[in-house]
Amino acid sequence: MKVVLAYSGGLDTSFCVKYLTEELGHEIHSVLVDTGGFTEEEIKDIETKAYELGVKHHHTARMVGEYYQKCIRYLVYGNILKNNTYPLSVSAERMFQAVAVADYAKEIGAEAVAHGSTGAGNDQVRFDMVFRIVLPNAQIITPIRDLRLSREAEIEFLKSKGVVREWHKAAYSINKGLWGTSVGGRETLTSDGFLPESAFPTQVTKKKGSEITLQFVKGELKGVNGRRFKNPVDAIRRLSELASPYGIGRDIHVGDTIIGIKGRVGFEAAAPLIIIKAHHLLEKHVLTKWQQYWKQNLAEWYGMLLHEGQFLEPLMRNIETFLESTQTNVTGEVRVQLAPYHFQLLGIKSDYDMMSPVFGSYGEMNNAWSGDDVRGFSKIMSNQVMIHEKIAELVAKK
Amino acid sequence: MKVVLAYSGGLDTSFCVKYLTEELGHEIHSVLVDTGGFTEEEIKDIETKAYELGVKHHHTARMVGEYYQKCIRYLVYGNILKNNTYPLSVSAERMFQAVAVADYAKEIGAEAVAHGSTGAGNDQVRFDMVFRIVLPNAQIITPIRDLRLSREAEIEFLKSKGVVREWHKAAYSINKGLWGTSVGGRETLTSDGFLPESAFPTQVTKKKGSEITLQFVKGELKGVNGRRFKNPVDAIRRLSELASPYGIGRDIHVGDTIIGIKGRVGFEAAAPLIIIKAHHLLEKHVLTKWQQYWKQNLAEWYGMLLHEGQFLEPLMRNIETFLESTQTNVTGEVRVQLAPYHFQLLGIKSDYDMMSPVFGSYGEMNNAWSGDDVRGFSKIMSNQVMIHEKIAELVAKK
Amino acid sequence: MKVVLAYSGGLDTSFCVKYLTEELGHEIHSVLVDTGGFTEEEIKDIETKAYELGVKHHHTARMVGEYYQKCIRYLVYGNILKNNTYPLSVSAERMFQAVAVADYAKEIGAEAVAHGSTGAGNDQVRFDMVFRIVLPNAQIITPIRDLRLSREAEIEFLKSKGVVREWHKAAYSINKGLWGTSVGGRETLTSDGFLPESAFPTQVTKKKGSEITLQFVKGELKGVNGRRFKNPVDAIRRLSELASPYGIGRDIHVGDTIIGIKGRVGFEAAAPLIIIKAHHLLEKHVLTKWQQYWKQNLAEWYGMLLHEGQFLEPLMRNIETFLESTQTNVTGEVRVQLAPYHFQLLGIKSDYDMMSPVFGSYGEMNNAWSGDDVRGFSKIMSNQVMIHEKIAELVAKK
Amino acid sequence: MKVVLAYSGGLDTSFCVKYLTEELGHEIHSVLVDTGGFTEEEIKDIETKAYELGVKHHHTARMVGEYYQKCIRYLVYGNILKNNTYPLSVSAERMFQAVAVADYAKEIGAEAVAHGSTGAGNDQVRFDMVFRIVLPNAQIITPIRDLRLSREAEIEFLKSKGVVREWHKAAYSINKGLWGTSVGGRETLTSDGFLPESAFPTQVTKKKGSEITLQFVKGELKGVNGRRFKNPVDAIRRLSELASPYGIGRDIHVGDTIIGIKGRVGFEAAAPLIIIKAHHLLEKHVLTKWQQYWKQNLAEWYGMLLHEGQFLEPLMRNIETFLESTQTNVTGEVRVQLAPYHFQLLGIKSDYDMMSPVFGSYGEMNNAWSGDDVRGFSKIMSNQVMIHEKIAELVAKK
Repeated sequence: MKVVLAYSGGLDTSFCVKYLTEELGHEIHSVLVDTGGFTEEEIKDIETKAYELGVKHHHTARMVGEYYQKCIRYLVYGNILKNNTYPLSVSAERMFQAVAVADYAKEIGAEAVAHGSTGAGNDQVRFDMVFRIVLPNAQIITPIRDLRLSREAEIEFLKSKGVVREWHKAAYSINKGLWGTSVGGRETLTSDGFLPESAFPTQVTKKKGSEITLQFVKGELKGVNGRRFKNPVDAIRRLSELASPYGIGRDIHVGDTIIGIKGRVGFEAAAPLIIIKAHHLLEKHVLTKWQQYWKQNLAEWYGMLLHEGQFLEPLMRNIETFLESTQTNVTGEVRVQLAPYHFQLLGIKSDYDMMSPVFGSYGEMNNAWSGDDVRGFSKIMSNQVMIHEKIAELVAKK
Repeated sequence: MKVVLAYSGGLDTSFCVKYLTEELGHEIHSVLVDTGGFTEEEIKDIETKAYELGVKHHHTARMVGEYYQKCIRYLVYGNILKNNTYPLSVSAERMFQAVAVADYAKEIGAEAVAHGSTGAGNDQVRFDMVFRIVLPNAQIITPIRDLRLSREAEIEFLKSKGVVREWHKAAYSINKGLWGTSVGGRETLTSDGFLPESAFPTQVTKKKGSEITLQFVKGELKGVNGRRFKNPVDAIRRLSELASPYGIGRDIHVGDTIIGIKGRVGFEAAAPLIIIKAHHLLEKHVLTKWQQYWKQNLAEWYGMLLHEGQFLEPLMRNIETFLESTQTNVTGEVRVQLAPYHFQLLGIKSDYDMMSPVFGSYGEMNNAWSGDDVRGFSKIMSNQVMIHEKIAELVAKK
Repeated sequence: MKVVLAYSGGLDTSFCVKYLTEELGHEIHSVLVDTGGFTEEEIKDIETKAYELGVKHHHTARMVGEYYQKCIRYLVYGNILKNNTYPLSVSAERMFQAVAVADYAKEIGAEAVAHGSTGAGNDQVRFDMVFRIVLPNAQIITPIRDLRLSREAEIEFLKSKGVVREWHKAAYSINKGLWGTSVGGRETLTSDGFLPESAFPTQVTKKKGSEITLQFVKGELKGVNGRRFKNPVDAIRRLSELASPYGIGRDIHVGDTIIGIKGRVGFEAAAPLIIIKAHHLLEKHVLTKWQQYWKQNLAEWYGMLLHEGQFLEPLMRNIETFLESTQTNVTGEVRVQLAPYHFQLLGIKSDYDMMSPVFGSYGEMNNAWSGDDVRGFSKIMSNQVMIHEKIAELVAKK
Repeated sequence: MKVVLAYSGGLDTSFCVKYLTEELGHEIHSVLVDTGGFTEEEIKDIETKAYELGVKHHHTARMVGEYYQKCIRYLVYGNILKNNTYPLSVSAERMFQAVAVADYAKEIGAEAVAHGSTGAGNDQVRFDMVFRIVLPNAQIITPIRDLRLSREAEIEFLKSKGVVREWHKAAYSINKGLWGTSVGGRETLTSDGFLPESAFPTQVTKKKGSEITLQFVKGELKGVNGRRFKNPVDAIRRLSELASPYGIGRDIHVGDTIIGIKGRVGFEAAAPLIIIKAHHLLEKHVLTKWQQYWKQNLAEWYGMLLHEGQFLEPLMRNIETFLESTQTNVTGEVRVQLAPYHFQLLGIKSDYDMMSPVFGSYGEMNNAWSGDDVRGFSKIMSNQVMIHEKIAELVAKK
């Protein structure tokens, strides 16, 4: 059977290749989806190893640009931090990988599609759901979940097939992408423990604070320190270079998994955190109160559905339309102070700034309205509750 | 006329006493409402000066305990930060002051009630609305708003009445209360500028990090570093002593004022920020996904209505009931790392922790469910979107 | 094995008894849960037949009172109509039946629990979920779903075991309970077709309109036409007698099933529809705008979670607390005109009516506020959008 | 001063013309905005009378088409009924009239703009707010609100100026537009009373039921009984001809006015009610569950903000974008049974119908998923609450 396999080059998916070809006799088409976490060297290495393992064909789907356009962009528009903490680094990219794999399987007319997720996490559901929606008639093959083999058993099996590699288990499992790096390990398996310095891929090398400016155009990061970037992907990377060495944007996300249990995952995501907070601050100046309110409500769901494998839900397209339509005025510059482990937003400049003193300063009198206007406002605004209280009094007297 | 005046001892309310007694011939009953921002010495001093200015009677309403019980408690239950930033330090206490003043006016049968707010900010609306609701028949007197005098003119008037004091205008206006201190000044009047170190009342004196533990019982802070406090007010104060010298909890809130313009206000609120974030983390472990979701939605409104002077809206009582009912399991300990200008939540311990490995660990296989269960789950979960996509395909073929 | 079976006396659950005892050798404890849809005679008949089929013990759980107290009451407080149409007649009672069966199984220490639902509808999920939550260690047995037998095969099997009964398939499947009767049949299987008159259990016998009054006390129906009922269950039944013969409250609900497909179900529910609409009208007079708004939002979820088998989700208890706290003033009388196939709300009387002309009539001038007050109100209310437009103009000019 | 007056030809605005020209010496430019409630004859008559009263220039703004395109369309997309009852007949058109008047004033460079609303209702705020936003520098003149004259005094004044007309006060005040007719009178001034038959402009002349079909294309009504209409305005009018003589769509709306008091207003709106309910039914078949959910939430606010004079709030444009993006599949036919005083939706036909039996029928087994799939689904779906309950048990045992 012609099977497309979501392939990363790790132990689990390497096992899948060998097992599906040699034990089950399938023809494997491996697909590596790059969402910004691999170097060119790594990509080539993964390809070489795939052929060594016996895939019929290996395909690298380069999705960084599309990933930004179709997903990250909206995470920025929506200031989305899952549970007010996590930029959805892995959740978002896993969805994109699933879609790219499914699209490729459709393109080459595969009869089955496979992934190497275990039965204990969110990723299996993300792959399952996307595969079923895009390829309702294809079989979904999940050897790791079904066989429930230990790491050791997988290594043993590969060894028995002549594949001898250094499958050293790192102390921390790392997943890197454009929108952040997740870090899991001993401390994140329990409720009480923070990751040690050594667990973070980017070590803190900058100690002296510095100030940067971010230029947003209609909600997208288009400049860093005055240098313009045509492609926001490059601006994100530039910001990451500047901010990551401060150890900014590290935290642990505690969340409800799709399968109903609680889980924790560490991450470092300097650029995503700064971009989201800076973008949010700019919005506070240029959007109306109710625009902000409804953006937040819809964005909360965008993040939740994305996280839970529902990226293809048509509502997501409707929310994207909404979010985009709110960004017309989100153009301006945000000043940010970087320091070890934290950052401080300093202020903004924007032609669309509604705080412009032209319209009256908070706490300073002006001529746009009078004290009597506010008196009338307060009177009318209190009407309903005043009536409500008066009635309570009348009833009490009865 | 018997007039109750919300009195703080500052220039504006001092002017009000003199103006209302000597120019308008009213009998002034001044009320100072203590929401945790005054020392005993300051309270006595304010009283003395009130009598010097000519009030008929001065009353100090000591409201810290009630303020906590009727308001701050719910801000903690709801993890409320206005615009995801500001713990509502001043908004909340101003409402309480307005209610206390109105209640006192009702008690002594005053025919009018006065406040010293200008016509440019939120406070005038808060006072106006509460006064109108609690005392629908009382006159509301607002000399500062109506006369629109400059600071200099007020000082001149007082001087002409024999009141000569040091009305030095501090570079930054400070408002202190149990739930934080607001700081306004030159930088907060524009969109682009952060407050200098010197503007913050609490200076940074601790540089070496330290770890603390917070004990919550049914959502309330009842212990700090293992020391139990019967009254959460004392626990808040203890935490403030420990954390404030780090410069934690400083930021600038950018918000939509009740009167429709944008405004910025700086603040330092170490204890409120740490409590809210720690409480939130604990909730992530002990509440269900949908409890967290709805708490957040309702809390957003609790904060908004409180901020906008609607504390007496009956919905607020309904939300309080809801929030309280969610706190049964919010009991446990949170570990927090304090450092200059920032803090890091480290983890929690709770008997109610739903992340207990008894129920399966995220990312680790277990016996509570099988891979097939998740496969079935994913299949059913994708049904609707799968159908939706299939239909799109069918229609396209027509 | 000791198995508790949710038993209704119909073909499917009769099959289950016989199959589980004789083929699998289990000891069956059948439970009939009465949620208001059976006469005493029917209850006895069902019990007799259960023993004839060979159950070890039969138990009738009389739950009408509890069903009202723990569920219907909140459906009234929340004015809950699923998809703005359906009073959740069956959804609500199925949940209650599942809980009662599970509680009984716990009480008698059963090792397994069984239901007779097919694999095509909502009920299976309701039973499955409640059973798993209340009895996490019990086996869940579902013969009808697993064997996928046709009606004919079931009848054949029973015949082979000596059970020969009139298992005539009615043209329409009817499910009756206190909160309405569902009607399914040929027309509801497709998207285009309404149920014929003959399909509805209650035929239209009243043609002449009549006017009734409903008395609510703190949100509960406590009187009909001035006759007080201690137990709202009796008031609901009285109203049903009066209104059902008009053919009021008939419709078809189109909804999203828990398993992702769309489904239609007809119903007649005269009393629920009238009660909900009358209660809602009363609330429009006695609650504030924002109380109504948030009640509606939370009630929407109460209905959705109830419908989808999530009655035991702790959020449900929090919502119940909220809803109950909003009902303090929902006391008064509602006049309703009944007519064939429809009804018209005529008006209300309540001590808590905020429309009282004491506070100014809509459209009539009064002394509670002046034209200038409203002018000020409008000015302040338009501030933000005015500024927003002004900025757009300024930017356009650049 | 050059003043643009929102003019309807009634007593109040006629008074305004005379008063503003002769007493205050202004140059009046009267504007009649047609939102579908006037015949050509009436329009001409109003123009003639305006000139007779002494306006400098009279302008008729024919806005029906734009009113549909920019507002009614979204009310249909959103299935908007204020307080689940009222199609916003008057609220919507008043906003449009205010905008048209303001735009005209801007166009001709008027220094002031006037309306004839009293100080007791919603309309004053709608006019005030739109005028202030569109014309921040123009004076807003409101003689009726400011002078607080009685009807008699106005008539007397006009008589004194030589204007003698039949200003007979109809028993019921009627406001007619494309989207319905409001009816106010004695009964709507109190909480308890329904309008008599005679109060409704359209009398019931059809007694025999009939069945109609409505054709929707991307959410818009484009056909009635198979007859296609290029302009939905004509389809609405055609439906109105067919349905109004049944007395369908009559009710009384009880609502919270912008100024905080409660108010009631009667209406007849056969076409709007049928269109909204039919459109909603169609959506239940073609949209996903969460699309419906979020449409409803946003539509609720669209209706509320429109009602409260906030049509120019930028959020409204964002919501419109969202609503429109949800309508791609809302194409199909709805069958409706008309009868005296009520109607019944019978069913729908649509290529986008997700209830298609191709994907499995509710209550009937199929091959798209198995019983085991649902068993797995239920298991995973109950995980969190199961854990929650288990913990409660464990803690209780401690």
